[in-house]
Amino acid sequence: MDAISLLKSHRSIRKFTDEPVADEMVEDIMSSAFCAATSSNLQGATVIRVRHLETRAAIAEVAGGQTYVETAGAFFVWCADLHRSSVACEIDGGEFHEGVTEHFVIATVDCAIAAQNAVVAAESLGLGICYIGGIRNDPARITELLELPDQVFPLFGMCFGWPDQDPPVKPRLPLSVTLKEERYDESADREGIAAYDETMRQYYLDRTGGKLDRAWSADMAALLGKESRPHMKAYLEGQGFNRR
Amino acid sequence: MDAISLLKSHRSIRKFTDEPVADEMVEDIMSSAFCAATSSNLQGATVIRVRHLETRAAIAEVAGGQTYVETAGAFFVWCADLHRSSVACEIDGGEFHEGVTEHFVIATVDCAIAAQNAVVAAESLGLGICYIGGIRNDPARITELLELPDQVFPLFGMCFGWPDQDPPVKPRLPLSVTLKEERYDESADREGIAAYDETMRQYYLDRTGGKLDRAWSADMAALLGKESRPHMKAYLEGQGFNRR
Repeated sequence: MDAISLLKSHRSIRKFTDEPVADEMVEDIMSSAFCAATSSNLQGATVIRVRHLETRAAIAEVAGGQTYVETAGAFFVWCADLHRSSVACEIDGGEFHEGVTEHFVIATVDCAIAAQNAVVAAESLGLGICYIGGIRNDPARITELLELPDQVFPLFGMCFGWPDQDPPVKPRLPLSVTLKEERYDESADREGIAAYDETMRQYYLDRTGGKLDRAWSADMAALLGKESRPHMKAYLEGQGFNRR
Repeated sequence: MDAISLLKSHRSIRKFTDEPVADEMVEDIMSSAFCAATSSNLQGATVIRVRHLETRAAIAEVAGGQTYVETAGAFFVWCADLHRSSVACEIDGGEFHEGVTEHFVIATVDCAIAAQNAVVAAESLGLGICYIGGIRNDPARITELLELPDQVFPLFGMCFGWPDQDPPVKPRLPLSVTLKEERYDESADREGIAAYDETMRQYYLDRTGGKLDRAWSADMAALLGKESRPHMKAYLEGQGFNRR
């Protein structure tokens, strides 16, 4: 399959066969992950493979009972990492400036794009994946479980495994809304959102045999109408990020 | 080329031929970009194609004189976007909670992984790319140039074009440092960093005909020994992010 078709066929997989994911395959995937671009060569991403079932069960609990964290062929936690580069500063005899918001942005972006390379690599081999943002329900607990030092925070988890389900690709907002020309012109956005609301309503109806009748706008109102994970600001500052 | 070989062959391209990038190709690339995973289906990314040469020149200046922002076949600004979903809240009659740090993380990650999909798609077609983090030198100016509303911020730029150079792949930190097992065990990190310092020293010497003799640790000390882009915290808060 060519790369663009591969990207367009992405869907999250949450049910996996018992077949394990070989260590050599993980190494190949992660080598290609870390070939992604990185700001100023910081390489602000670290990925931790978690095998112990007890730890995986504890992480699944943090993530709100996502059992596939336990059952996936392989499970990883992706961390934004400024600790390693602070060690490099020290090796060079330099001073490390802690808590700089821009450094947080760099490390978070480095981590996300390396992780997405891992997704592409894994899916090209026939594996299914699922991002687990739910680990941010209790990042302090994840920090404790994985013994993360200051300047490292768990951005998301990731399940890899051999798919035991074949869900459809979820529709996306039309490009008329997400790809703009010259400036942030939102004159066509409400029309595009209305069309997408209908698309998603049909998608949910089809997938639930008519039980779930909901538009995308309602999903957004539910998500953004509350202060999601209100601990995040204090957690990040406590971990050494975003203080200034 | 298979996907893993494609990912492993990535290097930034900063010199492009005059050949334009067709609109149809951009649409195909961006369609596959937005097929990337998105937290809670937020789709918190918007990409703005900038064609006007005046605007591109102004952005190149913000980025510290990166002239390829002007000369690349196509240039884009990737934005983390909560504005569109706030409109969706309003459509649904819901309230939008502004300034939530977790929402900032979601939108930033959504934007970064969609952008990385665009990179993979573009490179699979033979295009070269370069991320332009330098737009964060003056995000307020970019905000003004692109008329970004509140709840939208410019995460990075991206050049696409037909390569007119063939630089080598830049070496990365060894997996012994970046891929960990079970917990953040850093007992092998200093050894791995020392090996990488030598690798990078040789890389720089080779690329500059012996003129640049510098280790990775020195790069990190230069980068993190100062408060990079000290305006970022105030800018993000002013734009409606990260207030609580």
